[in-house]
Amino acid sequence: MSKPLLQVALDNLNISSALEATRVLADEVDVLEVGTILCYAEGAKAVSILRALYPDKTIVTDLKAADAGTTVAEIVFSAGTNWMTVICCAPYATMEAALEVAQKYNGDVQVELYGDWTFEQAEKWREIGLTQVIYHRGRDAAFAGQQWGEEDLVKIRRLVEMGFDVSVTGGLYARDLGFFEGIPVKCFIAGRGLYGADDPAQAARDFKAAIDKFW
Amino acid sequence: MSKPLLQVALDNLNISSALEATRVLADEVDVLEVGTILCYAEGAKAVSILRALYPDKTIVTDLKAADAGTTVAEIVFSAGTNWMTVICCAPYATMEAALEVAQKYNGDVQVELYGDWTFEQAEKWREIGLTQVIYHRGRDAAFAGQQWGEEDLVKIRRLVEMGFDVSVTGGLYARDLGFFEGIPVKCFIAGRGLYGADDPAQAARDFKAAIDKFW
Repeated sequence: MSKPLLQVALDNLNISSALEATRVLADEVDVLEVGTILCYAEGAKAVSILRALYPDKTIVTDLKAADAGTTVAEIVFSAGTNWMTVICCAPYATMEAALEVAQKYNGDVQVELYGDWTFEQAEKWREIGLTQVIYHRGRDAAFAGQQWGEEDLVKIRRLVEMGFDVSVTGGLYARDLGFFEGIPVKCFIAGRGLYGADDPAQAARDFKAAIDKFW
Repeated sequence: MSKPLLQVALDNLNISSALEATRVLADEVDVLEVGTILCYAEGAKAVSILRALYPDKTIVTDLKAADAGTTVAEIVFSAGTNWMTVICCAPYATMEAALEVAQKYNGDVQVELYGDWTFEQAEKWREIGLTQVIYHRGRDAAFAGQQWGEEDLVKIRRLVEMGFDVSVTGGLYARDLGFFEGIPVKCFIAGRGLYGADDPAQAARDFKAAIDKFW
């Protein structure tokens, strides 16, 4: 089982605060994510700025795209992203269109699992060629008190068995990682658990230490 | 029955091409929409630029927000939007959080109906105080050949009966509006059907004439 990667979700309100985070975190993490909030605030410029600064990093743009797959994929892949996300309730046609553009750039598309989705839909995602999903405990759901549980593990394992690379996110801290021991998680994604820490670089090293301990 | 409004969806790839459209369309339409594509490309700057140019227009930002309701709502309402959209598969907590911010700004939140949604969810949206939905024939679905049909009318009527203001969109041209005769549509939303026309102002007048004819 290869070790899970560590991804920082840059859900900053502007590019300058995102760069304060990447200045201390870029060397400590594997994947830089232009979070949805940063996308909405700054647009694709956030992607091109990160690409200019970190030419060799994997960059993912968390668009949660729901429509216009070709156009929005072209915007972010031409700006330099490696991966982008689509929302799970997007039409299959949108996912396919985004994937076609992604592949032109040697990139990939991840399905963000939010709210109500079904394994029947997930079968269809596999059929159209998608291989990455993000298992998400939503930010607002987390604020509303929803915790990680056995039910999450069952679903994640089933997605892995279907052939998906599964990334995991949603209010994660290093102390949470042991809960997922034994599952071949693709990426652990953290936002405030990294750049919101008193010492973000140390927080990233704590994540890496937990990954080394359990994988 | 009050007359449906006309909304232009600015799904441009950059703010300058959006402004080419609004220069000729702003006086002809009721609502200016910062489309998802324009949001992704330019960020909230697109909203603040339109607000600066058109202080008295209703502006809606089609974020299709799926999470972080408070933060993303604050971004776009502080930039000057009147309404914003959330995606139908967003957690209720996200919708509620966005609505709370919207109301602080005397604004509103619209639920974008995409892919699989249910009337049970719609009941819940009413319970948490949402009153606007956007009935959408998706762009990629439209490209895939899906047409307007009696099934759409049945669903739109049922949403109206539930107390929703229903806007309608998805590859609309003036010639399509008669199909919705008798339904109190809140807004007809068109993008390429307006700014993609040879004469966008005339296309808007054609929409308005169709609205006058059938409502």
